[in-house]
Amino acid sequence: MSYPEQFQGFATNDPKDWASPKLTSYQPKNFGARDVDIEVECCGICASELFALKNGWSHEPMACLSSKYGPKTQVVGHEVVGKIVAIGPEVTLCKVGDRVGLGAQASSCMKCSRCTSNNEQYCAKSVGTYCDPYEDGYVSQGGYASHVRAHEQFCFPVPPEIPSEFVAPLQCGGLTVFSPIKRNIAGKQNPRVAVIGIGGLGHMAIMISKALGAEVYAISRGYSKKEDASKMGADHFVATGEKDWNKGLDDHFDLILNCASSTTSLDLNALLPCLKVNCNFVSVGLPDIGEDFNVKPFSFFHNGCNMGSSKLGSREEAIELMQLAVEHNFRPWVETLKVSEAGVSEGLTRLDQGDVRYRFTLTGFHEFFGTGK
Amino acid sequence: MSYPEQFQGFATNDPKDWASPKLTSYQPKNFGARDVDIEVECCGICASELFALKNGWSHEPMACLSSKYGPKTQVVGHEVVGKIVAIGPEVTLCKVGDRVGLGAQASSCMKCSRCTSNNEQYCAKSVGTYCDPYEDGYVSQGGYASHVRAHEQFCFPVPPEIPSEFVAPLQCGGLTVFSPIKRNIAGKQNPRVAVIGIGGLGHMAIMISKALGAEVYAISRGYSKKEDASKMGADHFVATGEKDWNKGLDDHFDLILNCASSTTSLDLNALLPCLKVNCNFVSVGLPDIGEDFNVKPFSFFHNGCNMGSSKLGSREEAIELMQLAVEHNFRPWVETLKVSEAGVSEGLTRLDQGDVRYRFTLTGFHEFFGTGK
Repeated sequence: MSYPEQFQGFATNDPKDWASPKLTSYQPKNFGARDVDIEVECCGICASELFALKNGWSHEPMACLSSKYGPKTQVVGHEVVGKIVAIGPEVTLCKVGDRVGLGAQASSCMKCSRCTSNNEQYCAKSVGTYCDPYEDGYVSQGGYASHVRAHEQFCFPVPPEIPSEFVAPLQCGGLTVFSPIKRNIAGKQNPRVAVIGIGGLGHMAIMISKALGAEVYAISRGYSKKEDASKMGADHFVATGEKDWNKGLDDHFDLILNCASSTTSLDLNALLPCLKVNCNFVSVGLPDIGEDFNVKPFSFFHNGCNMGSSKLGSREEAIELMQLAVEHNFRPWVETLKVSEAGVSEGLTRLDQGDVRYRFTLTGFHEFFGTGK
Repeated sequence: MSYPEQFQGFATNDPKDWASPKLTSYQPKNFGARDVDIEVECCGICASELFALKNGWSHEPMACLSSKYGPKTQVVGHEVVGKIVAIGPEVTLCKVGDRVGLGAQASSCMKCSRCTSNNEQYCAKSVGTYCDPYEDGYVSQGGYASHVRAHEQFCFPVPPEIPSEFVAPLQCGGLTVFSPIKRNIAGKQNPRVAVIGIGGLGHMAIMISKALGAEVYAISRGYSKKEDASKMGADHFVATGEKDWNKGLDDHFDLILNCASSTTSLDLNALLPCLKVNCNFVSVGLPDIGEDFNVKPFSFFHNGCNMGSSKLGSREEAIELMQLAVEHNFRPWVETLKVSEAGVSEGLTRLDQGDVRYRFTLTGFHEFFGTGK
């Protein structure tokens, strides 16, 4: 059996095997009235995959092991680009043949106050593109695969100007930084944005902040990424490993966007005073579930600042982001890897070692799976 | 010597003696060109006084002990109401004879971006009404005194409709809650505000939130203040000591205002999900300097919420608050105490024990100091 009854993808179900998913066939979820099938063309590798495969965001066993129906193994991948090959009877947002992007969310209730106010990413019934149970018990399966099935709301039209390998990282990583940048600098004059952590998320945050009109500060521990940050569009570079790195930065930023995925190395009590009055420090890199923020109430007091988080972005924002990339002609910095067991393993392993500047996209899905005809 | 060369007030310089300040004469600060002298009529007792006198907000010895000039003892009090009896040559905002209120801030640079954008409370050169050194080394002296000297910017005109004992608590406590409530619900439709901690700050936060048009939830540990909260205008009461207290409160609040002064008893990981998308948990009660917030990054993730703080309010906000109290006819719940060594001691001691519903105002300053003629 093959598509549409069976999808193929690279799967594992043991955190020990996180770096070596195996090619597997599995049953897709039930085909909902507003679902579509995407024939995958390429898929970005997101740091979320490492947390998901290692089970670092959960105290429970991997969700697929207890799924009520569907595969007992897990395929990850949520920066999907591909072509619509089937649509449910109530689909109106896309049609067969469209090239679309799919990010980290595959479903939501479409009815609650969040879903009806361009905040569907915060829907309490949101289902992630992988590792997340649907109401019927099926655990969602991601995009390191021949096909992905998802609700049409989360399949975004892709502008023809951008090649797919660059579109992929925008679907999760790009959207994840775009949403808080846009929301936090909206309506501000000459905003200044600080981006902490020049990696997969951070490098897109620099380009996006710049495109949105901000003066951009790239903040890293040392100087190794200074030249890259400048090429991405950063106006300034700050190395927090230096003494007095924060001198002159008091009352400086409209937003500090933390793109580092660990919180324990951050000196929040030194960073927060760099914010302007009532502005926000927003973390988009989620750490291991055991990590806590530890911060003094007094650190928020002298500028009335806030610290928080942000989750993905809305459909509206995803479409806006891709349009911004067209208009300002920026592209994520991508290294492509041919998809295969070896390619997936190389990508995950090197990402885990920080050996990527700055994002992997798995390509060659058509050749590997015999699709794209 | 007496006024204008010497002020009289209730002072101490040893944290052990926090509950028994003694009547003392002391030299006021240099009279600046925009300074005014207020002949004190009454003064609220704020919980800040307990932290200041016990030195709980500092790792250093009390500032007055090392003051370069001026008294080596400390007078507190920053909810002052009184009459202007002298003005500097450049004063334009008030005149001799005006009844004014003075809160927790007595000076700022008046030039920086914060001072020129109605955020003077966040000026880096802000000087608190007591315990805070001016540039010349004089440590500011507060309002449990015959007179206070302060910059005119921080002396707010008081509407004639409100008796002074009710005006006093609005100057610090009232303003401290008004500013974040107003800023966080501005432009929102049918906002919901949760007020944690029904004490000196919280009881005013309920009345102010209500006057600003919010649906108000009073949040306390037990039910002892339920009836009072209802009289203050709270629409709902939540006792966090009950099992499942947060049931039905997911995605509920436009603002959670934490008016409790200790952070360690708060279950932030349960409170934060009660916020709507991108809304704020704001603490106005500052804890002892040793206390930290300890919170999981994941607790901010599902609604993209933030946690932060807020400091006092601007002159514009102070004036607006008093106008609101006139228009909506609300008054802080005040117990008056006659000023004297015994009265000050009783107020501080009972406040420390939580034995006040809900705010003390020291009165009778004219009789005690022989002023007001």
